[in-house]
Amino acid sequence: MTETGQRTPSRDVQGALVDAAERVLVRDGTAGLTVRAVATEAGVAPMGVYNRFGNKYGLVAAVLVRGFDALAASVRGDDADAPQDRLAGCGRRYRRFALGNREHYEAMFGTAVPSDARAAASTTELDEHAAAAFGVLVGEVSRAMDAGVLRRDDPAETAQVIWSAVHGAVSLELAGVTQAGDPEASFERLLAALLSGLS
Amino acid sequence: MTETGQRTPSRDVQGALVDAAERVLVRDGTAGLTVRAVATEAGVAPMGVYNRFGNKYGLVAAVLVRGFDALAASVRGDDADAPQDRLAGCGRRYRRFALGNREHYEAMFGTAVPSDARAAASTTELDEHAAAAFGVLVGEVSRAMDAGVLRRDDPAETAQVIWSAVHGAVSLELAGVTQAGDPEASFERLLAALLSGLS
Repeated sequence: MTETGQRTPSRDVQGALVDAAERVLVRDGTAGLTVRAVATEAGVAPMGVYNRFGNKYGLVAAVLVRGFDALAASVRGDDADAPQDRLAGCGRRYRRFALGNREHYEAMFGTAVPSDARAAASTTELDEHAAAAFGVLVGEVSRAMDAGVLRRDDPAETAQVIWSAVHGAVSLELAGVTQAGDPEASFERLLAALLSGLS
Repeated sequence: MTETGQRTPSRDVQGALVDAAERVLVRDGTAGLTVRAVATEAGVAPMGVYNRFGNKYGLVAAVLVRGFDALAASVRGDDADAPQDRLAGCGRRYRRFALGNREHYEAMFGTAVPSDARAAASTTELDEHAAAAFGVLVGEVSRAMDAGVLRRDDPAETAQVIWSAVHGAVSLELAGVTQAGDPEASFERLLAALLSGLS
């Protein structure tokens, strides 16, 4: 998600450090995302990273906040879609986000970033951005209920069910451990079965 | 899954080493599952582990083979269940297996064991046991189709859809990142929506 080529002289140092952290994450995975590696990548002294992010987990949190914002933007419904296709479109874009940002996705929802590390990070901001991304899906589910595409129910709980299922398909595809069928076709089957069962 | 108290003098050394590896996995996670740690845990020389398992990944594979066998046994349908409840029962036992064997589950289906490590391990045996566990679900799906509980379709592809969804709910619960609802109630909603959509 680094905006290569869009950096300007006015781009702030904090942003440049998160850019560097994203490059390190993509190259070396979550385990490699250390203050030292990011300082080297950004060409600054480690103290410059500590001063801004506190520690490794503050840096991870800053990367994940960007990830949740990008996911929220990806998942938002497309006004060009017919009401009955809109949620499936959200699901497809969710899958594309995960496949195109594998390291971010795994850090956001996997267990590579242990929960005690999450707790040590500036979780308030991180939790807010994660909740906002989920909120986009809840809004789409509400809209689908209003349009009669999904049956009326608690939108957040219905959104959780959709997210769980979609996350599962994407996770098994990312891990390369699916057992049957082409992953894209299987994802379409999942969307169709789930949305039908919730309609 | 270590069978504490059931060890007998005739229990073979290989089995005792896998027992030790399971204890190390549960205690220290996948990253801590090294030949040295397992040798220490089992009270043998590291060479004794190398001789039997080749390397760390051979040891991981042996643990995962056990995990898949235990999962297969957990997921198998209960003949006491009515046909229309049988698949939901499989799903509930799958969730209980994952929650009760968190470290095994993450090693089996997560990205903690990188795919190149899987490839380095004795994958033939591992793949066979993973496929056999999936095969139990495929058999249950076939049976549900025969009973008219699920609509007729390719049983393996339908099983993949069910597995994906169930895995997703369980993974988010294990990672502690769900956004809405009680995880157990949310799991029940997922099962009901999915099985309805596939019926």
